[in-house]
Amino acid sequence: MNSRIKEILSWYDSENPGVIRNLYSILMHGRLAGTGKVVVLPVDQGFEHGPARSFAPNPPGYDPIYHVKLAIDAGLNAHAAPLGSIQSMAREYAGQIPLILKVNSHDLLNDSPDPVPSVTSCVEDALKLGCVAVGFTIYPGSINFKKMYEEVREMAHEARRNGLVVVIWSYPRGSGLSKEGETAVDVVAYAVQIAAQLGAHLIKVKPPTEHIELEEARKVYEKYKIPVGTLSERVRHVMQSAFDGKRIVIFSGGPAKGREEVIEEIRQIKKGGAFGSIIGRNSFQRPREEALDFLDEVIKIYLEK
Amino acid sequence: MNSRIKEILSWYDSENPGVIRNLYSILMHGRLAGTGKVVVLPVDQGFEHGPARSFAPNPPGYDPIYHVKLAIDAGLNAHAAPLGSIQSMAREYAGQIPLILKVNSHDLLNDSPDPVPSVTSCVEDALKLGCVAVGFTIYPGSINFKKMYEEVREMAHEARRNGLVVVIWSYPRGSGLSKEGETAVDVVAYAVQIAAQLGAHLIKVKPPTEHIELEEARKVYEKYKIPVGTLSERVRHVMQSAFDGKRIVIFSGGPAKGREEVIEEIRQIKKGGAFGSIIGRNSFQRPREEALDFLDEVIKIYLEK
Amino acid sequence: MNSRIKEILSWYDSENPGVIRNLYSILMHGRLAGTGKVVVLPVDQGFEHGPARSFAPNPPGYDPIYHVKLAIDAGLNAHAAPLGSIQSMAREYAGQIPLILKVNSHDLLNDSPDPVPSVTSCVEDALKLGCVAVGFTIYPGSINFKKMYEEVREMAHEARRNGLVVVIWSYPRGSGLSKEGETAVDVVAYAVQIAAQLGAHLIKVKPPTEHIELEEARKVYEKYKIPVGTLSERVRHVMQSAFDGKRIVIFSGGPAKGREEVIEEIRQIKKGGAFGSIIGRNSFQRPREEALDFLDEVIKIYLEK
Amino acid sequence: MNSRIKEILSWYDSENPGVIRNLYSILMHGRLAGTGKVVVLPVDQGFEHGPARSFAPNPPGYDPIYHVKLAIDAGLNAHAAPLGSIQSMAREYAGQIPLILKVNSHDLLNDSPDPVPSVTSCVEDALKLGCVAVGFTIYPGSINFKKMYEEVREMAHEARRNGLVVVIWSYPRGSGLSKEGETAVDVVAYAVQIAAQLGAHLIKVKPPTEHIELEEARKVYEKYKIPVGTLSERVRHVMQSAFDGKRIVIFSGGPAKGREEVIEEIRQIKKGGAFGSIIGRNSFQRPREEALDFLDEVIKIYLEK
Amino acid sequence: MNSRIKEILSWYDSENPGVIRNLYSILMHGRLAGTGKVVVLPVDQGFEHGPARSFAPNPPGYDPIYHVKLAIDAGLNAHAAPLGSIQSMAREYAGQIPLILKVNSHDLLNDSPDPVPSVTSCVEDALKLGCVAVGFTIYPGSINFKKMYEEVREMAHEARRNGLVVVIWSYPRGSGLSKEGETAVDVVAYAVQIAAQLGAHLIKVKPPTEHIELEEARKVYEKYKIPVGTLSERVRHVMQSAFDGKRIVIFSGGPAKGREEVIEEIRQIKKGGAFGSIIGRNSFQRPREEALDFLDEVIKIYLEK
Repeated sequence: MNSRIKEILSWYDSENPGVIRNLYSILMHGRLAGTGKVVVLPVDQGFEHGPARSFAPNPPGYDPIYHVKLAIDAGLNAHAAPLGSIQSMAREYAGQIPLILKVNSHDLLNDSPDPVPSVTSCVEDALKLGCVAVGFTIYPGSINFKKMYEEVREMAHEARRNGLVVVIWSYPRGSGLSKEGETAVDVVAYAVQIAAQLGAHLIKVKPPTEHIELEEARKVYEKYKIPVGTLSERVRHVMQSAFDGKRIVIFSGGPAKGREEVIEEIRQIKKGGAFGSIIGRNSFQRPREEALDFLDEVIKIYLEK
Repeated sequence: MNSRIKEILSWYDSENPGVIRNLYSILMHGRLAGTGKVVVLPVDQGFEHGPARSFAPNPPGYDPIYHVKLAIDAGLNAHAAPLGSIQSMAREYAGQIPLILKVNSHDLLNDSPDPVPSVTSCVEDALKLGCVAVGFTIYPGSINFKKMYEEVREMAHEARRNGLVVVIWSYPRGSGLSKEGETAVDVVAYAVQIAAQLGAHLIKVKPPTEHIELEEARKVYEKYKIPVGTLSERVRHVMQSAFDGKRIVIFSGGPAKGREEVIEEIRQIKKGGAFGSIIGRNSFQRPREEALDFLDEVIKIYLEK
Repeated sequence: MNSRIKEILSWYDSENPGVIRNLYSILMHGRLAGTGKVVVLPVDQGFEHGPARSFAPNPPGYDPIYHVKLAIDAGLNAHAAPLGSIQSMAREYAGQIPLILKVNSHDLLNDSPDPVPSVTSCVEDALKLGCVAVGFTIYPGSINFKKMYEEVREMAHEARRNGLVVVIWSYPRGSGLSKEGETAVDVVAYAVQIAAQLGAHLIKVKPPTEHIELEEARKVYEKYKIPVGTLSERVRHVMQSAFDGKRIVIFSGGPAKGREEVIEEIRQIKKGGAFGSIIGRNSFQRPREEALDFLDEVIKIYLEK
Repeated sequence: MNSRIKEILSWYDSENPGVIRNLYSILMHGRLAGTGKVVVLPVDQGFEHGPARSFAPNPPGYDPIYHVKLAIDAGLNAHAAPLGSIQSMAREYAGQIPLILKVNSHDLLNDSPDPVPSVTSCVEDALKLGCVAVGFTIYPGSINFKKMYEEVREMAHEARRNGLVVVIWSYPRGSGLSKEGETAVDVVAYAVQIAAQLGAHLIKVKPPTEHIELEEARKVYEKYKIPVGTLSERVRHVMQSAFDGKRIVIFSGGPAKGREEVIEEIRQIKKGGAFGSIIGRNSFQRPREEALDFLDEVIKIYLEK
Repeated sequence: MNSRIKEILSWYDSENPGVIRNLYSILMHGRLAGTGKVVVLPVDQGFEHGPARSFAPNPPGYDPIYHVKLAIDAGLNAHAAPLGSIQSMAREYAGQIPLILKVNSHDLLNDSPDPVPSVTSCVEDALKLGCVAVGFTIYPGSINFKKMYEEVREMAHEARRNGLVVVIWSYPRGSGLSKEGETAVDVVAYAVQIAAQLGAHLIKVKPPTEHIELEEARKVYEKYKIPVGTLSERVRHVMQSAFDGKRIVIFSGGPAKGREEVIEEIRQIKKGGAFGSIIGRNSFQRPREEALDFLDEVIKIYLEK
């Protein structure tokens, strides 16, 4: 084991060796194996946004098998998906890429300013399906925060006891926040801290904007002149908020956009000290060859010294 | 086992052989045995709509035994009903047709824009009564989504562990949707995706209309020119949303209507690539001879190459 | 066993012999033994309406022992009461009359338009106290329907597994219904269907009125000219709604009224094909001799061919 | 359902419909479907006698898949085998023939005059693997009887509760019996009675000899002139001992011998009123074509009126 | 995945994807990855034979970390050890080599002709320590067979449910066998069959000798002229006894002996169709460099086409 991987794992040294084994399997899989960098393909948008919005741009994606193959062929570190998708391919692709079972999900058919996800699978499912981790979405800022945080507590505890890694998608949203506030730098930094405190081993957040949402926070950012003018500065600040960089935090790209734009964003994210990217729509909504080429470019960014 | 049945079962290869045996028993029963097509008789309307509305048009239907005999004599694949009905005939007709125990139900005596079904039987009931599957109704779009999805999660998990097939009736309804939206093509496609992600092996939805409910979805349907002009095109789109056709999806006919109209609808459904039909009121509200003749015509549609 | 009793028991042939034994004990007790008719004395009004309202008209009724003696002396089929009452006399009268333990109850000290009963005893109580059955009240139409139905599901399942008969008092009430609607013929028919689908072996409902509550139901009653002009016609319709008469349904008399009126009502109920009556206040609020005379008249009605 | 099958199932009417469904599946499978006759292929000899003794005569039999195919192709009613064998083929042959999971086994590496089998699989295994029944061997006559009978009690109870059929191989053996006594007619009759009293739905015994083992029994056989001179008379007596023929009893052939001899034995068994045969070594130790031809002859015997 | 690995995994298709993932991790680790061949380093001799007998020949072996490093550096497929050893190194080497937790062990301080191992760790230990498998020793031939087989049944069931591989060391020994009989070819073949029927995914046995122990078996070996003259012939026969080669069987080398002798033995084992070797004392009792050189030679044997 190289020293970087050893260092990363040392941050998790209160966890049992089962968790470490599975975390290691993520860090040592794919083209970024051993670099300490992580790129994950998440495909829960069928549930989260509906199938057409997710897969119409590239119809082979209606089949969950398409995605696991894409993640394997692109040399990514892991693939995350809800129960039905994992059931569709867990046997055929057993052992070929670390799988993260998304154990809660949310749909838009009864959307609300204060979203709350439903628990749709469980730790025993993850073990039976050969997954290395369970993944949760939380919405800090939602009035339903207590329900969500406590569901994470219960299931994450059981997951760790069985040697599974805990992943949290921490997406600020809800009546406690303005629309702009969902990606405000103070809020994203706060969201990453909450996820880390809930015991997440791997955290996914959105790239933060320059906006500062909370009045009390603004005073501090100004007083201490925390630099948040560029994306890489903001990412650096978010990383700091994740136990001074001692939790694996990866950044999403959000809705598909122009390739150049995404690539530039990822360069900034990397420059800011992030551990990597979680790239869903920006990859699977492109035709396969283009997606592979795009992911190749992303991986090369993270391979650069 | 012929290659079509083998292909269908291969999509469920993460399940244990007990689930496969019971799924096989549905696929291999009745006149459509071995074709991969499925026609089911569901009779939960006594609970869902009240007895007179359900059975007055054909009074022998007040007796649950009438229905299981109809399903057997018509050569259907399976019969679904709530606890009391199954209790009425499970011994006498044991083994003569695959039975699906409807484990949740909803009545209209305290109706609400946001329906929530009650759990009215359990996995042990299904095993004791010799059923091959448990069936749930969910109402995506209801504000009670979390309760429903989580009840499915818990009971479906237990069902699979005991070798039972999981069936979901996915009926969008609730304050998140307009009345028209309940059968909108984007919403039905979304509903089938949710059921598949919850781990359903067999999914029932309503035939979708041309209406598109969700604004964000509309943009996608227009941008990608997803053809939804005819019923068969819409069914094709719904099937695609069920893991690119890799989940068994069958379509209901809704309220009884003219025979010609229903038959034409079923032709379109079949043309769209559906696995079959679930026909309740359109069969059991007709006199028995007429119902058998009608079901014979339906089966012949599905038998056509 | 005579052929009528054999026929009735055959409708319950999915149940274990323990349930059958206990059901048989009800059908074969008292003066109606072997007729297939059933008259039950329920005394839960102390809890449901308060002691003075219930027992002041005939003060010996404050003592639970008064009631069980009355039921025995009148030659009834069974006696139903809540935990405390049964505890008062279960040892002394053990084996002398089938006892039904009312396992949930509701009081008026915090009444609400949407009543929900409390579970006040359990299956083990029933077994320990030598009861043949557990009894539940449900209020279809109450916004609390889910809680009630699911409590029935859980306890009725356990009761059947232990060989106990399941009795449901199905009393529509709640914000989903008008006051008049609580006894509307369509609603009572619906309530009996719900109880049967929940797995009740013996169902108690109120005599239905001519009123029709639900708009969608009205259309059907009119279209199919379902006769509901007389009480006996309405009872016939309710019986039909109980699996075409294959569940034991008995009718209450409601609030105490003039003896002639009650007797005439019971004649109509019997004419409509009911299995019998459940007579509380109309018997125990009269002086003992008068009550015995009254019950004698009731039994004679059911003894008539 | 024809009247013979209906009659057989009526003998088991204290069981739940789940058990009846699975029993029905055995009675309605293969070429003897609907006749009430049953021929089963058991292959537990690898464990019971060792692999070479079992499979060297026909080496393809080393592979468990060989046997399930043989049972299917011969049109038998069911196939019985221990856990490992069932695991080898349960998915591929799911639903194609009723499977009986042998849940206890015994080997010869520490043989003893008083054998005791080990429990090697469980009811949950049977449900997960899609089996219709669990099978036990008991050795009445062994000093370990209490252990065995009580293991049957516990697991058979759980099996029935989950709708599984209970099969008992009742093989008298142990220090309580002489070698000749193991197949003595009084002992085999006694063994079938014990199995029936333990709650077996289907019982397998060896063909009894004319020998009478127990002194007290001998007096009775002589006093009442119970005819045991021919095999068919003895089989008739054994059947009588199985609740006057109301339990499904099938007879094994024991070690492979000359075909004519076995066939003649089966004719006698059938003449004696047995329900069928369980044929292991006599079929699977012959080359496949010969085995199929042999089983065809056996089935034809049972098909004769 | 190459076709050989796919073929091997297909033999286990009744297991859940979690088991398949972990089995795959063994088959795809080390220098034999993807060949379908398996070499394992087991170090349970400290418990089984005492520390000095085990580690004095090469004192660094007193430290459990020595062994896991040896297994990793030699490029083996997996390393097996009891609880304490695994606890010593599971965190540091997490994910670097598949670990098999030996969950039962036996010592010599109260030795007996009829050994019985003690259960010394559990499935939850294996999950917490990041192991891919649990391993059991059974002693067919011991009078304690029932206790052992039933402990395997219970723990192996739980292991499979949680996605762990089940490994059995099947070592005939006990009062049912002569000393020579422990490695007799008929006995080893029988032992492998028992392990397979108990549900083992991976089986370890000793190389069989030409001796035949059981009288009844001898007749069969002679009658069918089963070739057992050379070690490779005997290995072939043992493999056949493992479901015709459809279970992964690996052979131990027994006590340390001359290198040439061991190497020749392994050549014969490979020639006989074994899946590989499990090499304990022959590797860890040599100095590290010599051991690595020796293991290199072993691996090269298995790499040869």
